[in-house]
Amino acid sequence: MISMETAICQLFKIDYPIIQAGMAGGPTTVELVVEVSNAGGLGTLGAAYMPPGALQQAIKAIQSATAKPFGVNIFAAPVQDDFSRLEEVQKALSPFRSQLKIQEIESSYQSPDWSEEQFNICVEEGVPIISTAFGCLSAGQMKTAKEQQIKIVVMVTTVAEAKLAEASGADAIVAQGSEAGGHRSSFSLDRHPAGAQIGTLSLVPQVVDAVGIPVIAAGGIVDGRGLVASLALGAQGVQIGTRFIGSKESGAHKAYKQALFKSNEESTVVTKSFSGRPARGIKNHFIEKFEQTGIVPLPFPSQNTITKDIRAAAAKADDPEFMSLWAGQSTRSLTEEVAAAEIVRTVVEEAKVILG
Amino acid sequence: MISMETAICQLFKIDYPIIQAGMAGGPTTVELVVEVSNAGGLGTLGAAYMPPGALQQAIKAIQSATAKPFGVNIFAAPVQDDFSRLEEVQKALSPFRSQLKIQEIESSYQSPDWSEEQFNICVEEGVPIISTAFGCLSAGQMKTAKEQQIKIVVMVTTVAEAKLAEASGADAIVAQGSEAGGHRSSFSLDRHPAGAQIGTLSLVPQVVDAVGIPVIAAGGIVDGRGLVASLALGAQGVQIGTRFIGSKESGAHKAYKQALFKSNEESTVVTKSFSGRPARGIKNHFIEKFEQTGIVPLPFPSQNTITKDIRAAAAKADDPEFMSLWAGQSTRSLTEEVAAAEIVRTVVEEAKVILG
Repeated sequence: MISMETAICQLFKIDYPIIQAGMAGGPTTVELVVEVSNAGGLGTLGAAYMPPGALQQAIKAIQSATAKPFGVNIFAAPVQDDFSRLEEVQKALSPFRSQLKIQEIESSYQSPDWSEEQFNICVEEGVPIISTAFGCLSAGQMKTAKEQQIKIVVMVTTVAEAKLAEASGADAIVAQGSEAGGHRSSFSLDRHPAGAQIGTLSLVPQVVDAVGIPVIAAGGIVDGRGLVASLALGAQGVQIGTRFIGSKESGAHKAYKQALFKSNEESTVVTKSFSGRPARGIKNHFIEKFEQTGIVPLPFPSQNTITKDIRAAAAKADDPEFMSLWAGQSTRSLTEEVAAAEIVRTVVEEAKVILG
Repeated sequence: MISMETAICQLFKIDYPIIQAGMAGGPTTVELVVEVSNAGGLGTLGAAYMPPGALQQAIKAIQSATAKPFGVNIFAAPVQDDFSRLEEVQKALSPFRSQLKIQEIESSYQSPDWSEEQFNICVEEGVPIISTAFGCLSAGQMKTAKEQQIKIVVMVTTVAEAKLAEASGADAIVAQGSEAGGHRSSFSLDRHPAGAQIGTLSLVPQVVDAVGIPVIAAGGIVDGRGLVASLALGAQGVQIGTRFIGSKESGAHKAYKQALFKSNEESTVVTKSFSGRPARGIKNHFIEKFEQTGIVPLPFPSQNTITKDIRAAAAKADDPEFMSLWAGQSTRSLTEEVAAAEIVRTVVEEAKVILG
């Protein structure tokens, strides 16, 4: 018997097993998080690229707008810059800067390393749920989280990673199938150079069979069909990212939303060209031309740091051809802006109809 | 309300919406097809590599062993050999032949072109269901099929292909997600050089929304969870391949079955190295070393034709490292041989429990 009252609803104290993915880089505004949580799902702030001060402010703003639980998503991978091949990669980036009429101004770079501070702020501010990508919290952080009764969620792409996450003390796991938009959460790029790409329908039951903690399905879920399917596979909830990119409250650039609404299941590719880590996004001029150069991007986050000015200029010029248009494979039905609360409501209603 | 009594059950006149995939090259023995059909599913003979005489014999054997419906799967792509780069590719294959202690005996090759004859035999012998990979039947063949009330099923990997299949007159569509083992059914390798790789959970609802004929989900489905999930996504049935490879009645080599039982969700890759067309299989010595050469395989079916002796020698030597070990991404739960009828029964029972 499939029920929407799952272990994840109990664990997170939410009405519906719908988690809005904590997408870094702008889409997850305070309003989006608040609307999703107020609608009975779990809103999640994508904090990975947020300076600590801005994160603290955003958390306070969320807390003042809702009494409901919410999550904050951070990256759990050490920041290890490597600019040794900077010159070579800058050469490959230079045509893009010319096209955008900007100049390479910096000669030396350093990526910010905020994850420790971000975690501490979440603890101080009493964030109820913290989720991580790329790996697990440190033992010390996990101890702190347990003491503060913060629930920890780890996103994984393989069964082996799920076991590591469970062993680290995680309270729940997000099983990220290959359909998912944005960064692949694979822990080791040595083991999975392009990120592990196991389909959601395949990954979820295999993770469910391997761990004793609740599993949240992610990747390709945009409606009630995906929710019920995920529950049938043994998941206790779903994480939805791409559909919320197109929500009214999303902070995604207008041109990004328009590209999303025009895209279909054939539009995306997995690329390292923007950040140095494999991520799924809508194929555009930047991805195509950068990959044609054959130049290997710098490792994450260095590549992300040096392409920042290009993405900023693209945003200013309303030009989606140079933006990172992260999106999953289920975009055909997304054709216009919808309020986040309406998305939650619709997914729940659709699921209820399917369950009869 | 999810029900196992679907439009596919009515169309194919079967008890359960479970189609055993028509895997070419040996796994789908007469016994396997008969057992699956007798258990209430739809057994399918993978006839693509079968000489017309052998096909006719197999069809007659199936018909004498069961009165239930069954299917025959053929390739619907023109055979266009191209051996212009033969010498270069043979050089890359020569270390494998040395390792297997065989010699390159032929200096000229020609791939058999049986699909027309195969189709005609199916019509003559009154096969109730014909399914195709790589494309649709010709208009003439479709007309013949309609006249004979043969049901036609086309396997697709994108929405655009699904629309082509529907327009060709197909009675049902198999939506093949990226999890699926064996050849990607993508119609055009110009458009999808590595085959379209859209996850099953993402592809199925988008195909369902786009066509008016019943859709069968394929890719990563091995149990009742996958069946119910597929029905929730809007499919009217499922196609299961990999799990039947490991069935008692499967004709897969013993070493192939053992490799399957030891594999997990990280074991497979999509490769053109065996056949020239992208296909998902368990990574082994042959795939790894051939791809390391950087030599582009000949196009399909020429590459398949020239690697035949290597695969035959590997079979003789019980060496899975040189066999094409086609498999999907859901192999963790497959650990030993199970009777095909038991597989059908178990999947149905599991689904019933989930549906409550």
